[in-house]
Amino acid sequence: MRENKYDDAAFFQKYSQMDRSREGLDGAGEWSELQKLLPDFSGKRVLDLGCGYGWHCRYAAEHGASQVLGVDISYRMLERAREINETPVIVYRRAAMEDLVLPDASCDVVLSSLAFHYVRDFEPLVARIRRFLPTGGTFVFSVEHPVFTAHGSQDWYYDQAGNILHFPVDNYYYEGPREATFLGEKVIKYHRTLTTYLGTLLQNGFALRQVVEPQPPAHMLNRPGMRDEMRRPMMLLVAAEAV
Amino acid sequence: MRENKYDDAAFFQKYSQMDRSREGLDGAGEWSELQKLLPDFSGKRVLDLGCGYGWHCRYAAEHGASQVLGVDISYRMLERAREINETPVIVYRRAAMEDLVLPDASCDVVLSSLAFHYVRDFEPLVARIRRFLPTGGTFVFSVEHPVFTAHGSQDWYYDQAGNILHFPVDNYYYEGPREATFLGEKVIKYHRTLTTYLGTLLQNGFALRQVVEPQPPAHMLNRPGMRDEMRRPMMLLVAAEAV
Repeated sequence: MRENKYDDAAFFQKYSQMDRSREGLDGAGEWSELQKLLPDFSGKRVLDLGCGYGWHCRYAAEHGASQVLGVDISYRMLERAREINETPVIVYRRAAMEDLVLPDASCDVVLSSLAFHYVRDFEPLVARIRRFLPTGGTFVFSVEHPVFTAHGSQDWYYDQAGNILHFPVDNYYYEGPREATFLGEKVIKYHRTLTTYLGTLLQNGFALRQVVEPQPPAHMLNRPGMRDEMRRPMMLLVAAEAV
Repeated sequence: MRENKYDDAAFFQKYSQMDRSREGLDGAGEWSELQKLLPDFSGKRVLDLGCGYGWHCRYAAEHGASQVLGVDISYRMLERAREINETPVIVYRRAAMEDLVLPDASCDVVLSSLAFHYVRDFEPLVARIRRFLPTGGTFVFSVEHPVFTAHGSQDWYYDQAGNILHFPVDNYYYEGPREATFLGEKVIKYHRTLTTYLGTLLQNGFALRQVVEPQPPAHMLNRPGMRDEMRRPMMLLVAAEAV
């Protein structure tokens, strides 16, 4: 069974209320950093794994991509993507990314935003993505940071008065499922070390171009909780090139 | 003033009692992983920045290096290095690595073990190291992991009964000095994010070859405290190539 919490009606309802859902790319704290890692999309064939509402698909389309394939396992997500982020060059397809079959070298750019931490087996997925790309192709993704996924609670550690003391890290080298609470619902995410994220790329035909832990942009620091985002890394962004 | 706690007599005395000091490379939990990142030393000119007792210098010499320059700011360290790890191809020199002047492309391999977290300004050092190397040259180093340096205490967080609860991360994006207690003495170390460590290499003419957070080897897990090392990353190892 592939992780697909987003077709749970209650969960999806809460997700749809998040800033990143209501405001699109500009509502996502990491967007300004992720944007810098993206290639020139002109004339490119783009694949977005775990496309969700399709914001990145639309961005690629509006920046010249010749075709965009958005893949997601959630029909609710795709339904919404087709409503709000449809353009003539985008095709949305329902599939688990782990099972996706495409011809070799059929994409120039593979994107994935905050989806790989739902995937149990990273290595076969990366090997598969490498085959989707020709040499010189671009692979850009974001995941929850290993610091954020290690402990499992995905929450700060508080004092008795409810003040944040710090963020807890534990069981770092024990990779595998963590049951976290996200939007008040139980969600299974997979913790992997940084060693695994980067080493899997290096061992499967990718060169690392950029590795970035995004800080919240200055103009978002006044949003609730955003200043605390300076206290621990929540996300990891990686740009790699097929070599 | 460059950090040089190792010439403090009390500190040096305690350091000399650590497994890594008494047993050399085999007493260092990360050695088995670091060793895998090292290049073939045959005929190579090797520079070791922060060489300490000279264990890595000797390893390079015994594996075919044609010349080895070990640099350290501590005269106590170098005195000991000359006593226990002297070979005809090794030269030990007292200098702060930040001030070291060498001809361009005069080294084939630059090593540094657990020294860069004492350096305030990483970028000029990396730019300098790049000039020491020809294209194709190898740069391998270990540092304390950003997870380990962020909070500053470098200690676990305990419950009231003294049991380890987890490892605290805080102030991750605020780079700079941290006053840690190491071997019972106050030591200033510099916290940097992973973004800074890897991005500085990528922006200064290096390609990343391996990025490894070393786990303790199975045969050391019965040493005191070593099993807890599975709970958070303490070190980061990087192998890069001058491109």
